[in-house]
Amino acid sequence: MTETTNVSAAQARREQELTECVVASFDNTPDERLKQLMQALSKHLHAFIREVRLTEAEWQKAIAFLTQVGHITDDKRDEFILLSDVLGVSMQTIAVNNPAEGDATEATVFGPFFVDDAPRIELGGDIAGGAHGTPCWVEGTVTDTEGQPVAGARIEVWEADEDGFYDVQYDDGRTSARAHFNTGADGTYRFWGLRPTPYPIPHDGPVGKMLEAVGRSPFRASHLHFMITATGHRTLVTHIFVKGDPQLEIGDSVFGVKESLVKEFADHPAGTPTPDGRVLDVSWATVRFDIVLADNNRS
Amino acid sequence: MTETTNVSAAQARREQELTECVVASFDNTPDERLKQLMQALSKHLHAFIREVRLTEAEWQKAIAFLTQVGHITDDKRDEFILLSDVLGVSMQTIAVNNPAEGDATEATVFGPFFVDDAPRIELGGDIAGGAHGTPCWVEGTVTDTEGQPVAGARIEVWEADEDGFYDVQYDDGRTSARAHFNTGADGTYRFWGLRPTPYPIPHDGPVGKMLEAVGRSPFRASHLHFMITATGHRTLVTHIFVKGDPQLEIGDSVFGVKESLVKEFADHPAGTPTPDGRVLDVSWATVRFDIVLADNNRS
Repeated sequence: MTETTNVSAAQARREQELTECVVASFDNTPDERLKQLMQALSKHLHAFIREVRLTEAEWQKAIAFLTQVGHITDDKRDEFILLSDVLGVSMQTIAVNNPAEGDATEATVFGPFFVDDAPRIELGGDIAGGAHGTPCWVEGTVTDTEGQPVAGARIEVWEADEDGFYDVQYDDGRTSARAHFNTGADGTYRFWGLRPTPYPIPHDGPVGKMLEAVGRSPFRASHLHFMITATGHRTLVTHIFVKGDPQLEIGDSVFGVKESLVKEFADHPAGTPTPDGRVLDVSWATVRFDIVLADNNRS
Repeated sequence: MTETTNVSAAQARREQELTECVVASFDNTPDERLKQLMQALSKHLHAFIREVRLTEAEWQKAIAFLTQVGHITDDKRDEFILLSDVLGVSMQTIAVNNPAEGDATEATVFGPFFVDDAPRIELGGDIAGGAHGTPCWVEGTVTDTEGQPVAGARIEVWEADEDGFYDVQYDDGRTSARAHFNTGADGTYRFWGLRPTPYPIPHDGPVGKMLEAVGRSPFRASHLHFMITATGHRTLVTHIFVKGDPQLEIGDSVFGVKESLVKEFADHPAGTPTPDGRVLDVSWATVRFDIVLADNNRS
């Protein structure tokens, strides 16, 4: 295959006319927003093809790849979401929809492992529910961008066990390593979770093969999920990451990491008294995560 | 949903950093070309999301749409090719790979209806093979860009019948309205075909629904397919279109039309002697298509 480095004026005109013809084909779209989306999508797709001088063989490979992605996708597995994730498309969509507002805590990917009916615990309770891992005391405050505590904010937390599996990936249907609770009158919260561990996204399909071909790790950086909802505030979906996790250097496979979300996890030997006055016969950890909620100024 | 018209500098920086992080994730791709493709694709996808300020609901709809496209795709139907076609992606890929060269005849989409083992006919023979439609005498020359005749060029022709169906869409497995032959020593060719008729691309799936939502016709402009191969020349895959076909104004659903490929089809009443000295008891048509082959200067 010869790479076309010079495109004649006549050729460039042909290509440009084609792009304009495709864009114009959407001119009569009744829904203005759909029109905008289809026209912008067409422009960017055509710009990509023209820039890289896509060959017909590459086009065929792309069609075959998308066909494979479509065929592995079922009710339980959406390989298109995975594809969107590993191209940073999911994370960019989140970025666009959660604009920076003062020192509000940054959002990150929601992921496929949230469930709606996680158990309610009291402040200071344990979310593990039998999941194995190093106990981790998590505490912090929820405030608004003025620094005022947000009382009664609902916090959902969920995470993988020490083997990298969420409860929904177990065979036995049990609920573990997830819960919800509310902040106290002073906006504080605390609970026992697990020290997060790394795990790979499902990588036995076409997206996994693509990651292999480009030399990328399928692993996610270790993280603990949070979703915080409070009246008058923008709902925050985020994670905290573990400072020193080698995967932070290698790269999170779905680009979920924000520097501001990387937290220091302190390790404590067995027998050291815990913040809630217990003595554990295993080593344990602590982390602090202070959350700032943006105002709900978007419809 | 509020449309973000102003993006703060801090927000723009966050979004730009994310794009750069995704692009950098492909830095270690062993294959240089794959690296170029993935990095350019990521850049253009991210630019699209940022430009249109894609909402999370729209992202979900896009994932659901691609999932539907994947699920209707099987051995006989590739809805991803259809999607590529109606976005002009297929045609732009063809344009990029068949650059303008002198007055060489322009290429257009291959389509899904070519078959490899079409019958051989003599010059002046009939390709119809029982397919219904208005008989059409097609003639022309094959020359190179210097105007020299190309003797012995292999020409494959195929087309739909008057109801808009190709033989491969019949139930009975017969071959009709397709054939191949070679140009004579003077580079000329002639055959009896059918006056082309319009037909829709398969529009009972998600791509058809999309076309409906944007107010676009699923119909292709009437056309007759040609593929010409000759030693020393770039293989030409093209169509001719029918001047005056209303679909040319409405728009060809896959953007295959080039002005230079629109030909005047002359109609003749029953009983008028034909170019090969026959008298038909039905009306018939004639068209001339002179073909110029580009040199085979690409590996």
